[in-house]
Order: sequence, then structure tokens, then C-alpha cells
Amino acid sequence: MPSAAATETPGPGPTGRRGRPGYDQQSVLNVAVEVFNRHGYDATSMGILAENLGISKSAIYHHVPSKEDLLSLALEQALGGLESVWEAPETQHGTAEERLEFVVRSTVRVLTERLPFVTLLLRLRGNTETERKAMERRRGFDRKVAELIGEARAEGTVRSDIDPRTVSRLLFGTVNSIVEWYRPGGALTPERLADDVVAVLFNGLRAGRA
Amino acid sequence: MPSAAATETPGPGPTGRRGRPGYDQQSVLNVAVEVFNRHGYDATSMGILAENLGISKSAIYHHVPSKEDLLSLALEQALGGLESVWEAPETQHGTAEERLEFVVRSTVRVLTERLPFVTLLLRLRGNTETERKAMERRRGFDRKVAELIGEARAEGTVRSDIDPRTVSRLLFGTVNSIVEWYRPGGALTPERLADDVVAVLFNGLRAGRA
Repeated sequence: MPSAAATETPGPGPTGRRGRPGYDQQSVLNVAVEVFNRHGYDATSMGILAENLGISKSAIYHHVPSKEDLLSLALEQALGGLESVWEAPETQHGTAEERLEFVVRSTVRVLTERLPFVTLLLRLRGNTETERKAMERRRGFDRKVAELIGEARAEGTVRSDIDPRTVSRLLFGTVNSIVEWYRPGGALTPERLADDVVAVLFNGLRAGRA
Repeated sequence: MPSAAATETPGPGPTGRRGRPGYDQQSVLNVAVEVFNRHGYDATSMGILAENLGISKSAIYHHVPSKEDLLSLALEQALGGLESVWEAPETQHGTAEERLEFVVRSTVRVLTERLPFVTLLLRLRGNTETERKAMERRRGFDRKVAELIGEARAEGTVRSDIDPRTVSRLLFGTVNSIVEWYRPGGALTPERLADDVVAVLFNGLRAGRA
């Protein structure tokens, strides 16, 4: 996922040394996403954003034409990261189970690297056109994973005694829930978390199944 | 969970046959919870609620003194259901693994029976005192499950190669995510879903581990 890595830590944040801080679009976006996640997108006005940024509303409009454009740019960072998972050669060869494990592991990495952006994506309610388009792209990602689960069932590596839609839902439930509790920079590295998620999802919690 | 079952389908909904529908407190609550989940609690005004109920704001105040009281009553239905899990005798005897399976199964049942109420609980952001109190009660529930996971590790039935906090987080992630997609009344019954969740969580997705 080279494109994911390239924008992993987006922007430098406020850079001004005197007076009002200078923002670029990415650092405005970083703050906006935190505020959207804290208050909800609908409940966040440009006034609230301006307050959190410490700049005027018109200064925000210098970077983006509207609140919905901010949302759109933020969601692109989440969706672009997730979609780049499928560009890796590991998704093109090997058994379906190996490819599924790779996709789960890569998805965990994108989630942890772009945590606030994916959080925003996962909390969308679909009240605006921008939200609905993003949710459709997210469903496209989910469909590809569901197809992979289907292939793994067909090759006999993933259990077939549970409805594949339920398997898919529970897999996404486990993976996506990471955004609710994971805090970057702690003892639990993204790599270790990815290992743990793959271990629990594929082998279960019962002892002696590693 | 007798108390859970008793209020499983709360209230009769609008009951008036002529003119404006008559509501009792529970049916006001049922509508309010749906609206909170759709728009977010912060973004929902009493005016929006009145519109959705088809009654005046003052008619709502006849049932509850404030929006925050509506929230409090709704959260009580979620938390009361979850807490009643621990009143069952099955949580008092057997191995820790058996008790953990029982608690997971019961939690899935409460989630599916009180879906909109638990959804509201899980989406809280902690912006008000009512929200923070509810989140503290939810953490109390989570702590008891975490203790049970610790016991099951100690007795050697649950894997010990993953940090118990991660195990606990992933377990809740899988279970709680059900509120995001489960729709009551379909082919997937709450009982079957509970079986599937227990099977995936304890045995994993890999074939041949039932």
C-alpha cells in the first residue's frame, strides 16, 4: 500500500510562529475530522470549526469551499487507503484464505494509520449525497471481502456452517471496532494488533488452537 | 433474564384511532430513540422530535420533562437489559469458559431484543452528565466480562498468547457490531446469531474447528 504509507501522517499541523497559526488544507482537515468525530458531522457548524482552529470562518473558506467539501476530502483519505489494499500483489495470488488474511491485516493497518478518517467513515449516517457516495464506495470494499470469503469457503479453508453474510458481518465487526478503542503510540503496535486480529478471527479465542 | 424478557417489546406504539395519535411514555421513547439514532442525540431538537411524533412540543413535555430525561430513560432500557445478564444462575457456576459463553450469548440476545436502545448506548460521545453516567455503567459491564476472560485464561481454556485487554476489546467489538447490521424479523434469528457469534469467537473462521 505505497499510497497509504505516503500520506500516513498527513500535514504538519499549524506552522505559524507568530500571531495566528498558519494552516494548510491538510492540517485544517486533521482538526475538522477530530471535531466531526467529537460532535458528529451534522452538529458541527463552520463556527464550531473556526473556534477549534482558532481562525475565522472566512479563513476556513480560503482552504475549502464548504463543510461538505471538508467531509468529502476527509472521507477520500479513508476510502483511498482502504481501496489501495487491493493494489498489492498479495491480493492476486495464493489461496483465498491467504489473500483474506492479507486483506484483514492490511485493513487493520489502514484503520490504525488513518484512525480519525476511518472513524468518520464508519460513523456516517447517509444524510447527505457526499455521505451516501462514500457509503457506496465502502460497500464496494466490503463486497470484495465478501467475495473472498466465498472463495475461501469454496476451497474449504473457511467454515461453511455459518451463513457467509453473517461471517462477513462478524469479520467486519471485529476489524472495524478497532477504531473505537485503538490509540496509536501505545505498547500495542499496528503490526501486533494485526497479528492478534488475524489470530482471533481465524483460530478463535479457545486455548490450544494457534 | 426475566426482566429483559418482560420489556422486550416495549409499549404499544400510537394507540389513538381518531385525530392525533395517543402516546404513552414508552411509545414516545421508542420514536425518540429512532430519531436520536438517525440524527445523533446532539443534533436532535425537541422540535424535530415533535415533528417525528406528529404532536406538539408541549405534548412531549407532558410525558418527560426534558430531552435529557428521554435519553436517560432510553439508556436505562439498554443498561438494565445488559446488567440483568448477571442475575442469571448460569453466571454463578460452571467453568469460566462456560460462563463467558453464556454471557456472550445473553448479551447478543439483549442487543437484538433492544436493538435501538443499545445502539444509542454504544454511540454515546459523553457530552452530557447523563451520557457519562451511562458510559460508566457500560464500563462496569465490560469490566465484569474482562474479569471472566481473565478467569478463563487462568483455567487454561482461553488463549493466553494475546494481551487480555486486546482479547476483551475484540470480543466486545465483534458482539457490539451486531447493532450496526442486524435487522429483527429476518431469517437470522437471535438464537442462531448467538450460536454463530459464539462459534466464530471461540473457534474462529477456519474450517474444521467446530
